[in-house]
Amino acid sequence: MALPQTHKAVVWRPPARDIRVEQVPIPKIEHPDDAIVKIQLAGLCGSDLHVYRGDEDVHEPHVCGHELIGHVVALGSSFGPNAPRERPALYATLKLGDKVVVPFTISCGECEFCRRGFTARCIKSCLLGQPILPGGQAQYARIPHAGGTLFALETLTNTGPALPDASLLLLADILPTGIFVALQALSHPKLAPALTGTAWPASASPALGAYFNDAVDARAAIVPADKTLQIAVVGLGPVGLCALFALLDMLATLRAHYRVIGVDLNPARRAKAQAMYDIVAKAENMRGEFCVADGDEAKDVVKQWGRGGCHAVLEVVGHPSALSLSLALLGPVGIISSCGVHQAPAIPFTGRELYNANATLEFGRCSVRAVFPAALRLLLKRRDIFGIIGDSGLVERVVGLDDAPEAYEKFNRGEWGKVVFDPWA
Amino acid sequence: MALPQTHKAVVWRPPARDIRVEQVPIPKIEHPDDAIVKIQLAGLCGSDLHVYRGDEDVHEPHVCGHELIGHVVALGSSFGPNAPRERPALYATLKLGDKVVVPFTISCGECEFCRRGFTARCIKSCLLGQPILPGGQAQYARIPHAGGTLFALETLTNTGPALPDASLLLLADILPTGIFVALQALSHPKLAPALTGTAWPASASPALGAYFNDAVDARAAIVPADKTLQIAVVGLGPVGLCALFALLDMLATLRAHYRVIGVDLNPARRAKAQAMYDIVAKAENMRGEFCVADGDEAKDVVKQWGRGGCHAVLEVVGHPSALSLSLALLGPVGIISSCGVHQAPAIPFTGRELYNANATLEFGRCSVRAVFPAALRLLLKRRDIFGIIGDSGLVERVVGLDDAPEAYEKFNRGEWGKVVFDPWA
Repeated sequence: MALPQTHKAVVWRPPARDIRVEQVPIPKIEHPDDAIVKIQLAGLCGSDLHVYRGDEDVHEPHVCGHELIGHVVALGSSFGPNAPRERPALYATLKLGDKVVVPFTISCGECEFCRRGFTARCIKSCLLGQPILPGGQAQYARIPHAGGTLFALETLTNTGPALPDASLLLLADILPTGIFVALQALSHPKLAPALTGTAWPASASPALGAYFNDAVDARAAIVPADKTLQIAVVGLGPVGLCALFALLDMLATLRAHYRVIGVDLNPARRAKAQAMYDIVAKAENMRGEFCVADGDEAKDVVKQWGRGGCHAVLEVVGHPSALSLSLALLGPVGIISSCGVHQAPAIPFTGRELYNANATLEFGRCSVRAVFPAALRLLLKRRDIFGIIGDSGLVERVVGLDDAPEAYEKFNRGEWGKVVFDPWA
Repeated sequence: MALPQTHKAVVWRPPARDIRVEQVPIPKIEHPDDAIVKIQLAGLCGSDLHVYRGDEDVHEPHVCGHELIGHVVALGSSFGPNAPRERPALYATLKLGDKVVVPFTISCGECEFCRRGFTARCIKSCLLGQPILPGGQAQYARIPHAGGTLFALETLTNTGPALPDASLLLLADILPTGIFVALQALSHPKLAPALTGTAWPASASPALGAYFNDAVDARAAIVPADKTLQIAVVGLGPVGLCALFALLDMLATLRAHYRVIGVDLNPARRAKAQAMYDIVAKAENMRGEFCVADGDEAKDVVKQWGRGGCHAVLEVVGHPSALSLSLALLGPVGIISSCGVHQAPAIPFTGRELYNANATLEFGRCSVRAVFPAALRLLLKRRDIFGIIGDSGLVERVVGLDDAPEAYEKFNRGEWGKVVFDPWA
């Protein structure tokens, strides 16, 4: 397949807020494990804004963007029927022309971390959209360790009416991240007593069950498994919405009752969250209550819920103020689960505050590649909200790359919601 | 039983380092749920040193101490055969003269937190040894909510040769705390892939298993369950030793291989940890390696272990420097489990550090009452180290209350190990 020498790309220049659309050299195969993807659609993500504002630890011009969907147009020599059987399957099966989603970080699929599912911390991990790895807001991208990294959409069958490609793009980062931040809370041993009816410590670890199987007191241990969880989602941007609906879907799977509050200082974001919830509530049997609020209102609401606060707070912002609010909403023996891309500021807590709260803090990047199958299932199930492109959907608009400077500015100001670029428009 | 009007007690006076032994009014029954305990032995704990040094948030004179063992000498009117059946069992069964261990915090046994096993955050929780609740370094103590709080030792049968009472005192705080800090690490979903051979996210939550049951890639998901965990214990004072041997015992239960390093800047503490390990290694089939080191050496050792650091670090100090060292020893996707009684200083991490590490931080106070049965079993099993009183044991010496000023000073300087007071000597 003959590829051009240059292509159009969105380039960020230091120190901040300088977004230009330029013709740059096209990426080429550099290593046998590489693939070149011709980009069909590319996303603009909240974490791109950290770079945009000059808050990230990056100081050179580079092609931005880490959410992409497209077709394979070139493959390194590792790909083919002779690929060793112990390598990730795509080295044997991926073909030119295959449609793929690219996770926002590269993962080899073969190191200890990848094999255990922690693809976010692959020993070869690299975030797309950096000086060392040009990103996806462009017409082509080079994907290293492509056999481990890529998710081939041809493996989809029986998925019903086709989803818009702009929706499939949500798989690249934000929908798996929403699942991750909800799962870190719901899978924590601290929630097991509420969900299972078995007191701690016996409920903390199935493998250590016999170690702790004595009831402290036969009567005190009779824990009504009322399974009502009080949870706040702080941040209702696109990732926050993914977290919210991933949380609700998992709560439904657990048959747990809930009080969930979505918190954001932006009224348009709150309204969108409520509107999406109302759509889901028409389709599903919901076992709880949902409301939206700004930070101060949220403190009042959560105080009225009782028990000293939330069982868990999902923090989906990436700013110390969101962490402070999260701790204020958290009840004793709770979990703050954060997927926010935090920066240089210090964690805004004293040791005493965290000791007194018996708090768990979970930080980090989602292992997107490991979550893909569950994310795809959720995307298909919730096509009623994720499949809509427009004001009432998660992806609000699709624009050309030439609109990138405006898109960054308006997304940063909260005037636009999630933007997807069509690099060929 | 006629009780005296006054008794001898250890009193701390502000601002710092002022410990006196005084005659103070004896505590009396104030509420039907109270018990009065005649104290047989009382412990001096590392967290008493925070008060001693003036670092705690307390500014009035008070009777110190939160580890006590003794006999019931008075009971409130809630106790007796007519106690309602739904109340904790001791309201019906506890008798004058019963031998009891008192956990360092009061817990009612009847609120949501107690019923779920989180007795440390009982809605009536109160730390013994405060202005509002005189402590146990004395001859008598009032125990509120005694039916929920106390652990009656008469329930012990078939425990073999009697343990010294000074060893039973370890149940009041530090041995359960050691179990707690180890359990928070070992029960965390992040360790499930290493322990079970099932990759994340499928391994994160049994209740959500079906949600994540797709292998990302059939071959990549074949995770050798080699179960070798790399763990550091930062702080080898008495609580650190409890954490270390609780950790090893739980690793043995899990049949996990390990590399464990005990870290302390005090060479005497390191030597004691190594000596105790050698005793245990003679008695048990150990599945790993153990060494001791100071902070700098530990970084070198852990670096040589590979995989970027430890799966988990137990922090048993309560100082920001220990947290910083913990993060330096931690590998990607790891857990810092802290039971240190942290104070006013800020958590010494930036958001970016924690995001980049995919780190979990666990903070808090142990729910001692819920851990008692497991702690007692461990105490009996490890009588070879916990049952020794003297230089080679955990409890180094038993002294009279009149020696309290010297005991605080020397324990604070690291010259004395764990001290127990005999209030009648």
